[in-house]
Amino acid sequence: MNKKPRIVILGAGYGGMMTATRLQKSTAYRDAEITLVNKHNYHYQTTWLHEPAAGTMHHDRTRMKIDSVVDTNKINFVKDSVVEIKRDEKKVILEDGELDYDYLVIGLGSEPETFGIPGVEEHSFAIRSVNSVRLIREHIEYMFASYNKQDEKSDDVLTFVVAGAGFTGIEFVGELSERIPELCKEYDIDRELVKVYSVEAAPTALPGFDEELVEYAMNLLESRGVEFKINTPIKEVQDGRVLLADGEEIKAQTVIWTTGIRGNSIIENSGYETMRGRVKVESDLRVPGSDDTFIIGDCALIINEEINRPYPPTAQIAIQQSYTCSNNLKALIAGKTEMEEFKPDIKGTVASLGGKEAIGIVGERKLYGNSASAVKKIIDNRYLFLLGGMPLVLKKGKLKFF
Amino acid sequence: MNKKPRIVILGAGYGGMMTATRLQKSTAYRDAEITLVNKHNYHYQTTWLHEPAAGTMHHDRTRMKIDSVVDTNKINFVKDSVVEIKRDEKKVILEDGELDYDYLVIGLGSEPETFGIPGVEEHSFAIRSVNSVRLIREHIEYMFASYNKQDEKSDDVLTFVVAGAGFTGIEFVGELSERIPELCKEYDIDRELVKVYSVEAAPTALPGFDEELVEYAMNLLESRGVEFKINTPIKEVQDGRVLLADGEEIKAQTVIWTTGIRGNSIIENSGYETMRGRVKVESDLRVPGSDDTFIIGDCALIINEEINRPYPPTAQIAIQQSYTCSNNLKALIAGKTEMEEFKPDIKGTVASLGGKEAIGIVGERKLYGNSASAVKKIIDNRYLFLLGGMPLVLKKGKLKFF
Repeated sequence: MNKKPRIVILGAGYGGMMTATRLQKSTAYRDAEITLVNKHNYHYQTTWLHEPAAGTMHHDRTRMKIDSVVDTNKINFVKDSVVEIKRDEKKVILEDGELDYDYLVIGLGSEPETFGIPGVEEHSFAIRSVNSVRLIREHIEYMFASYNKQDEKSDDVLTFVVAGAGFTGIEFVGELSERIPELCKEYDIDRELVKVYSVEAAPTALPGFDEELVEYAMNLLESRGVEFKINTPIKEVQDGRVLLADGEEIKAQTVIWTTGIRGNSIIENSGYETMRGRVKVESDLRVPGSDDTFIIGDCALIINEEINRPYPPTAQIAIQQSYTCSNNLKALIAGKTEMEEFKPDIKGTVASLGGKEAIGIVGERKLYGNSASAVKKIIDNRYLFLLGGMPLVLKKGKLKFF
Repeated sequence: MNKKPRIVILGAGYGGMMTATRLQKSTAYRDAEITLVNKHNYHYQTTWLHEPAAGTMHHDRTRMKIDSVVDTNKINFVKDSVVEIKRDEKKVILEDGELDYDYLVIGLGSEPETFGIPGVEEHSFAIRSVNSVRLIREHIEYMFASYNKQDEKSDDVLTFVVAGAGFTGIEFVGELSERIPELCKEYDIDRELVKVYSVEAAPTALPGFDEELVEYAMNLLESRGVEFKINTPIKEVQDGRVLLADGEEIKAQTVIWTTGIRGNSIIENSGYETMRGRVKVESDLRVPGSDDTFIIGDCALIINEEINRPYPPTAQIAIQQSYTCSNNLKALIAGKTEMEEFKPDIKGTVASLGGKEAIGIVGERKLYGNSASAVKKIIDNRYLFLLGGMPLVLKKGKLKFF
């Protein structure tokens, strides 16, 4: 009797989680030994994290136990952290063990891109995980709680700098600007004392997005008291202040870093050829020269031929990749060699702005306000449906549309 | 026409607040110009503060707007901080002004007693005001939020030292031990990692209290995971650790200081003769040699002749003093010289232990558990009734008895 091939999936983010559940739904689990490895025993929705970070949603709504979605009778689950991939030995080194594989799926997710700017790692927060956003929420509340206890009242504790006005930055600022009036009430603080800066190096907020929608978003956020500093690179982050390239400095006890992401350093450290931590994968999502290894999600670099630039790493593309990846794995374990090509089908992009506000493009259509917000919720619920069907939508979905 | 005498009441704690409302209920406000001065525009219940500090009650339940209880058509209210009392000029210096008085009531409350132990002011929290307990609550949550974000997991952030096992210390530990399981759930932390130390220099917890009840309390709190270090003076508090006199050190990022109180330094700095900030008042509550000035509450030192020791400063005694004080003020503005003597009538003492648990003595009777807890709530509600009648009890009272 032949030994079953071993498929190891690293990371239970959008890509890894969907690959695992799709293999589970097919009969692939009968013909292969499939193992999912993740640092935590839960999966979380990275694209929702700006909400618990600002404190407008409880973090438990963004996560679910992996074994509530993955049937561990069909797919093995190992809770452990990946240290290194030894591609020549077809082995993954974990903190507390190791795993041999015949086929590997790398869905390890991203790391914050700091661009080497000094002080970012030491003095700023990243919207990255349940652990990190819980800390941001508590840090923000702590700042408000501190204010009235200061001997010399300093507004620095009420100044919040959000570095980067890309999607995450803008979505976070949207939530934060909704939360601040509540925090002011809770801690007896005059709203006027609180400052929120959205600082962006590029010449516009949401670079690359429709200009009309960007203007709508900026006007809305400004009306909630957000101050934009566009075209303003950050030179350094120090304890208690942010130094801007134009010589100005902002005194702030809170800096949230959202200037984009890079691939996972585990991949670089395992000897794969990367560009900012991402691997330019083949059209079938395999690593060039490693026919046994797929990379999906934030670590996969795929060029949009139309504009000759990489597709931005999103949940949408990671989910689509999981389809191709799981189909190709099924083919491989069935002994086939012909692989499906990955073709992204970008259906649109919607950014929430807090409360009932959002902006977005779906197909050719621009959306504002309530309707964009409703579409955003439909997108979020659709993912839950794909992952765990209607029960999961009812349990974790965004059901209050208006 | 004679000018009306001016009565100035400093501080809207238990004593000042009750004096003001009693003068308001009589017709005294017609015959005198009465002014209440307080740092905040709200009154709070100092004896409840261990609950919002631990996060088991919202701080707003412990406070009420002063003008919701005091009729500012009858009593002037000035929101300002007292800087100094110039007794020779019969004048109170405020941060933003000054007030002349004919009669003065000092109800300025207490300050934490640090016994000169190094590091207490810099590295510990006191359960003192709405502002301070809000910060304690947020600090505790921040510690839990930090734990899983540490690169090297250190238990120091989950170690809580409560210095002093007197009433406040024990009541706070009671609430904290109730809250910790909730925090562990919220932040994915194993309960076993959290340490709570109750450190007391005296040879027993709750010194002076009934031994049987003390044992009940300690057993209960130990069953909730509290570790007592009795007969253990603290030598120094440093950033991140507490040094004990026996040479041991406890690494802890959180120290709550509850080793008792002293009188307000404003009184010392204004040239009154004090013992640890408290003035030994005459039997009519006036300051020796200052017939125009009453001191009530935590700054008034009154000897219990039976045991030749001062009565402990409590809300109960402050409220009783407000009766004598307001009666004597009414007599003075009516031109009388005979003063009523203050006779404390200590009805009992109940300490809450969190949840539905408490211990207490009422009259000669010892109370435990549920019944003590119910009595504690009755006491709390009775104060609200005295202050603002049934409407205030309904608004701010503790109505869920069992």
